[in-house]
Amino acid sequence: MAPTQALTSLRIDPERLARDLAGLARIGIGDDGGVNRLAFSLADLRGRHYMIHLLQRAGIAVHMDGIGNLIGRIAGRDPGAPAVAIGSHIDSVPGGGRFDGSVGVVAALEVARTIREAGTPPDRPLEVLIFVAEESSRFGFSTIGSSAMAGDTEPDHLLGLTDRGGRRLGDILARFGIDREDVAAARRAPGQIGHYLELHIEQGRVLVEEGKRVGVVRAVAAPCRLKVTFIGRADHSGATPMELRRDALAAAARLVAFVEDVCRRERPTPVVGTVGAIEVKPGAMNVVPGEATVWIDMRSTSRPERDTVRDAVLDAARRLAGDRMLRVAIETVMEDDPVPLDPAVCALLERCCTARGVPYRVMDSGAGHDAMKMARIARAGLLFVPSREGVSHNPLEWTALPDIAAGAQILLDAVHALAAPTVAAPGVLAAPGGPHA
Amino acid sequence: MAPTQALTSLRIDPERLARDLAGLARIGIGDDGGVNRLAFSLADLRGRHYMIHLLQRAGIAVHMDGIGNLIGRIAGRDPGAPAVAIGSHIDSVPGGGRFDGSVGVVAALEVARTIREAGTPPDRPLEVLIFVAEESSRFGFSTIGSSAMAGDTEPDHLLGLTDRGGRRLGDILARFGIDREDVAAARRAPGQIGHYLELHIEQGRVLVEEGKRVGVVRAVAAPCRLKVTFIGRADHSGATPMELRRDALAAAARLVAFVEDVCRRERPTPVVGTVGAIEVKPGAMNVVPGEATVWIDMRSTSRPERDTVRDAVLDAARRLAGDRMLRVAIETVMEDDPVPLDPAVCALLERCCTARGVPYRVMDSGAGHDAMKMARIARAGLLFVPSREGVSHNPLEWTALPDIAAGAQILLDAVHALAAPTVAAPGVLAAPGGPHA
Repeated sequence: MAPTQALTSLRIDPERLARDLAGLARIGIGDDGGVNRLAFSLADLRGRHYMIHLLQRAGIAVHMDGIGNLIGRIAGRDPGAPAVAIGSHIDSVPGGGRFDGSVGVVAALEVARTIREAGTPPDRPLEVLIFVAEESSRFGFSTIGSSAMAGDTEPDHLLGLTDRGGRRLGDILARFGIDREDVAAARRAPGQIGHYLELHIEQGRVLVEEGKRVGVVRAVAAPCRLKVTFIGRADHSGATPMELRRDALAAAARLVAFVEDVCRRERPTPVVGTVGAIEVKPGAMNVVPGEATVWIDMRSTSRPERDTVRDAVLDAARRLAGDRMLRVAIETVMEDDPVPLDPAVCALLERCCTARGVPYRVMDSGAGHDAMKMARIARAGLLFVPSREGVSHNPLEWTALPDIAAGAQILLDAVHALAAPTVAAPGVLAAPGGPHA
Repeated sequence: MAPTQALTSLRIDPERLARDLAGLARIGIGDDGGVNRLAFSLADLRGRHYMIHLLQRAGIAVHMDGIGNLIGRIAGRDPGAPAVAIGSHIDSVPGGGRFDGSVGVVAALEVARTIREAGTPPDRPLEVLIFVAEESSRFGFSTIGSSAMAGDTEPDHLLGLTDRGGRRLGDILARFGIDREDVAAARRAPGQIGHYLELHIEQGRVLVEEGKRVGVVRAVAAPCRLKVTFIGRADHSGATPMELRRDALAAAARLVAFVEDVCRRERPTPVVGTVGAIEVKPGAMNVVPGEATVWIDMRSTSRPERDTVRDAVLDAARRLAGDRMLRVAIETVMEDDPVPLDPAVCALLERCCTARGVPYRVMDSGAGHDAMKMARIARAGLLFVPSREGVSHNPLEWTALPDIAAGAQILLDAVHALAAPTVAAPGVLAAPGGPHA
């Protein structure tokens, strides 16, 4: 496909997109401008109603699956062909931003609406997917809706998830009359969805620092999370000479420094490591800490590289404890596999950027997204648009409208190329059916 | 004075001492065995009533000064001579131990009682001092009673101290009809108290590690306390490459390690340094910390050595911030001067230990005590008895009765030598009147 060949004459409408995004942002907004649409909260339900309304008004049929995902669908000329799906989520963290997830959902609506308005049905069915509970804020488990759709997690596990108030997801769904069978039925059979594309904000500062408008994501780095607790001895800070101490924080602090040092080392694939939380006991100014816990988050698109770092961190923790006569307790909180996205879809997205003259870079995602789950059952692609100052999960989260519009247009171009393959040259598109086919 | 000459034939009664100590421990005791006698709480007042009762039963006149300190007094043959005072405190931290302060108060009672029972009045007046609010737990300010008596702190400052519930000490005292004039009158005129001796638990593990029964304290190391806050930038832990981070905790952790390293260095006078508390914001596993605060406590009996360490720590904090493009805010929370105790009193206490065959060592106190304040107006001495495992401010605090009895006997020997100078050889005792005379 020569670049010009990939381009559709269709154009998304940036103003309409901005209006719908602003409308969605008003649902669950707090006094500080933060968005509060915790999964399955009233504001979350109202947000979903708003999206149903917009889809229906655009003439797009919409239904809800057994876990609460919304599926808008435009029939294709070949009704049996694997669908091209686009989407994201509208639930938020408490006090979150108006772009995280919402950008992808509204862009998906805009792309589908634009294609529908063109009058010519696409060759393949087109789906708009609005996933539930992508954020882990409520149930300590992320991408619940896409996990159910991709069959990545057993329904019983999902139903058993409990929020901080002790409410089971299964009980919440039961109030809507949704039972285990329904949740199991949310799983899509292989071949139903051929491709899944998602537009999302970067939530980091790479695109801004490099002055790019779009990121074409090659892989999603999954986290390995450790909780490391050093147990020493609480002593009076004045009455205990340095050489008689078993200071748990002194060891934990050196582990924090080690995590940074080991992740700063040059590697074939980078690994990022963060200690985001630390806790000491008893935590008084005049007491040598008897216990110190650090929570370590390590991510890479390379599992072997990440494992190397994890092993080095574990060695360091044990060595620090051994040298200082401390006990150490290590808990692996999470250990997911990194997810590569579909290389052919990446290449298509790159070509669309080039054809439109949109400055882009190929990059990895450090954050998890629904695309990561959908990659199990479809050829998946993920596009990023810049986050101002890299800020996300915060009322100050911001992405400029021209960037969102550019991303949505690339999404439209790619969807058009995939859903109307007759316009594309041979070799551009992978055989439909996804990696499982 | 040859050792044998220093010894009085008087002996404290270990069983009576133990009984009174156990009686005091029952006041404010919690289900976990911890003692809860927060300053000016009902349990604290009940504790003081108990001590008044015991003093009166022993025939010792007792009155309360304008801030609430109890003063038991045995007249001397020379009524105008500077008094020999002994004492400590009975207030506790929340969930504290039964020995901290109480040991010194009950030992002082026992010493005075023993002398009184002997029938011969001492040459100099003898005072039992039971100070209020030695612990900083309630008002964030320690040794309130002895500060008032020593005139170390202005009455208005003491009256303005506020607890966490927002209650002013001045308002609490006003309920007892105590006003500013009363508090000012608690200050003792120079020359009234010639010597002040205190028995206290060590609250550290030096005596236990060395198998000593008594510590003769040479100096009290006062703390310099800093609050250091690094301000960086909160970023997504997955989406932010290592080189784009401004991680506040990574800097704070290196400062924690620096404090330990600099205090472990060999010095003419040791300095101990502790980071007992640390706080990060936002404190989530998937967010690079944007802010990290450490509270640093540094102590030494040498102010110059402590200042050297403080300066090195401040340099390190500023260098870490500069290297990492962080802002740093430094607050000096406290900066007291170390207090040397009276060398002649130390020498007397050492001689008493030798004469009784009690294994002792000369040492410094890392913790603050009432003796530190009383040293401003009297020749002061401080004796330590061992703390099992160095544990204090904890229900598990423990000091063996034979150690307490040995300490109390040394206290009696020293008080007798000071208050009945006719029995001591020339040169043993300093001229009465204290350092101000």
